Amino acid sequence: MTQLYDRVALIGLGLIASSMAHAMRRGGLAGEIVGTARSAETREIAREIGLCDRVVDTAAEAVADADLVVLAIPVGAMEDMAREIGPHLKPGATVTDVGSVKRAVVDAVAPHVPEGVHFIPGHPLAGTEHSGPRSGFAELFENRFTILVPDGNTAMEPIERLTALWQGMGALVETMDVEHHDLVLAVTSHTPHLIAYTMVGVADDLRRVTDSEVIKYSAAGFRDFTRIAASDPTMWRDVFLNNKEATLEILGRFTEELFALQRAIRTGDGEQLFDYFTRTRAIRRGIVEAGQDTDVPNFGRPVKKP
Amino acid sequence: MTQLYDRVALIGLGLIASSMAHAMRRGGLAGEIVGTARSAETREIAREIGLCDRVVDTAAEAVADADLVVLAIPVGAMEDMAREIGPHLKPGATVTDVGSVKRAVVDAVAPHVPEGVHFIPGHPLAGTEHSGPRSGFAELFENRFTILVPDGNTAMEPIERLTALWQGMGALVETMDVEHHDLVLAVTSHTPHLIAYTMVGVADDLRRVTDSEVIKYSAAGFRDFTRIAASDPTMWRDVFLNNKEATLEILGRFTEELFALQRAIRTGDGEQLFDYFTRTRAIRRGIVEAGQDTDVPNFGRPVKKP
Ligand SMILES: NC(=O)c1ccc[n+]([C@@H]2O[C@H](COP(=O)([O-])OP(=O)(O)OC[C@H]3O[C@@H](n4cnc5c(N)ncnc54)[C@H](OP(=O)(O)O)[C@@H]3O)[C@@H](O)[C@H]2O)c1
Ligand SMILES: NC(=O)c1ccc[n+]([C@@H]2O[C@H](COP(=O)([O-])OP(=O)(O)OC[C@H]3O[C@@H](n4cnc5c(N)ncnc54)[C@H](OP(=O)(O)O)[C@@H]3O)[C@@H](O)[C@H]2O)c1
Repeated sequence: MTQLYDRVALIGLGLIASSMAHAMRRGGLAGEIVGTARSAETREIAREIGLCDRVVDTAAEAVADADLVVLAIPVGAMEDMAREIGPHLKPGATVTDVGSVKRAVVDAVAPHVPEGVHFIPGHPLAGTEHSGPRSGFAELFENRFTILVPDGNTAMEPIERLTALWQGMGALVETMDVEHHDLVLAVTSHTPHLIAYTMVGVADDLRRVTDSEVIKYSAAGFRDFTRIAASDPTMWRDVFLNNKEATLEILGRFTEELFALQRAIRTGDGEQLFDYFTRTRAIRRGIVEAGQDTDVPNFGRPVKKP
Repeated sequence: MTQLYDRVALIGLGLIASSMAHAMRRGGLAGEIVGTARSAETREIAREIGLCDRVVDTAAEAVADADLVVLAIPVGAMEDMAREIGPHLKPGATVTDVGSVKRAVVDAVAPHVPEGVHFIPGHPLAGTEHSGPRSGFAELFENRFTILVPDGNTAMEPIERLTALWQGMGALVETMDVEHHDLVLAVTSHTPHLIAYTMVGVADDLRRVTDSEVIKYSAAGFRDFTRIAASDPTMWRDVFLNNKEATLEILGRFTEELFALQRAIRTGDGEQLFDYFTRTRAIRRGIVEAGQDTDVPNFGRPVKKP
């Protein structure tokens, strides 16, 4: 494939950045990949496994002369990082991020991006429950959407180039309004995560059912929630602190509907339950047809012999 | 392996019964497997794919001379079925069921089981989102728990034989008190399913986010919920109608905790969120260590090329 950037700087070397490193290499999309992370430990691991062409100790060094800078750190850390790298950005470079929330990141980062540098916020809708520099793999973005939310004044060429990079990593790219992104993600990601965390918390708290029972008998549905609730606590704290309004709106709708179903259970209204449970199947079919999930039973989990 | 029953009658030929048929055959556990289902269509499919040794048109015929009778139909259908087969059960035979709720099934079935027939209610904690006679497979019960809830007066020999059957199909077997079963399952299965159905319903209902957006951007967490919410509506209606009390108790705890987290989001209490999200990871580790789920990212879902 074509090289799209001479030098890419990855700020943060966790799941997303390490997956990008693998995918850019596979596609020959970057001339040089320079990486950095907050801790010496992560930088050491990155060096050991040869994740980047070069691992440097500071973000300022990493962005020097980079054509593309990717902020791949928790949402709550974006502002300080933007302030730190702002003065070192090369004129004409593009800055992007991969944060799961967009309004807060735009507000935090944009003020620190100097004139002549393009800021194109982004979000790959792909992830796993694992984190850190060893968790990345080149296929993570394959057939998944990456949403870019550039403002109306951004030049076309840098947007097209960044789009080509994500496509080169296997992603489908869409652009969207910042606020709409945060609402859509509150529905498809943030609220589901909060609910999963809550369900696992409830199970953990119960006195009358032990943790060991919960663990043994988890295959009946619960274990799916525990995967989601095993995601990185820092990342998710930052998501909820930074997408308050939309999450609270969707949570309000959620509790409203939950109360209606709860009432149907209490009053024994089987018809309402049946109709509700029937209606929700169509969305699943849509997701499988759109290639966004597999139809193999239980996601095709490997069956582990005792 | 050893043949444990000369003749097994499967009443209902859906996911669970068809998986049992495959698993019993693999293990040579039954001399003859006789099956029946409500609809001519299902019986025809079962004949076509050779699911049983014999498919008969009525439950009365199926249970005649059977040493083990398995009720593998929705919980709400158990009472009528028990009334229908009661007079035809062979003295000394064992009747079991696979219903997801136990108190209601015991109350519905026990009165119709004649003296001299052993009734041992059961529940395999294994399933998928698919249903019907074609959805079964021999490995479904592998390394999963089956819970038996015999009452204190049941003879040991029939319990041991039924235990051996489930073990021969790959399951781990435990016995438990009827009420405790229903509470444990309310936590590990029933409430998670209701929550998943609700979340998918909310997403489907929203005006400001289209169904097509929900589908496209589902990989960020939501799609996991849609798999659970794709399960059979009849089965789940019956579960909630028949495990009211325990489900409502756990739902009460759930909304309580959800409100606490909602409040933490509203007030920006990052510490509380972080602590909560950290605590829930331990249960996931326990489940993976106990062999009840895989640690492969995203359950090891196949990555589908566009
Ligand atoms: N995981 C997902 O499913 C997913 C999906 C889409 C988008 N995202 C977004 O992608 C971003 C990165 O997530 P990830 O999953 O790649 O996380 P990760 O695996 O936990 O890695 C996070 C990286 O950020 C660094 N970091 C953490 N706190 C920092 C701070 N205060 N200042 C500077 N660097 C800091 C970490 O450095 P050390 O290793 O040295 O601690 C690490 O290299 C987040 O904004 C997240 O919202 C995540
Ligand atoms: N699916 C799971 O994950 C799971 C796990 C553990 C336990 N269970 C329990 O196992 C039982 C069967 O579930 P399944 O998943 O095997 O269901 P399924 O695939 O939907 O099959 C249900 C079977 O029951 C028959 N049936 C439905 N309504 C009936 C009625 N009113 N009278 C007589 N027969 C009727 C159906 O006959 P037709 O095909 O002719 O309609 C079909 O053969 C349920 O009690 C469920 O709670 C399910």
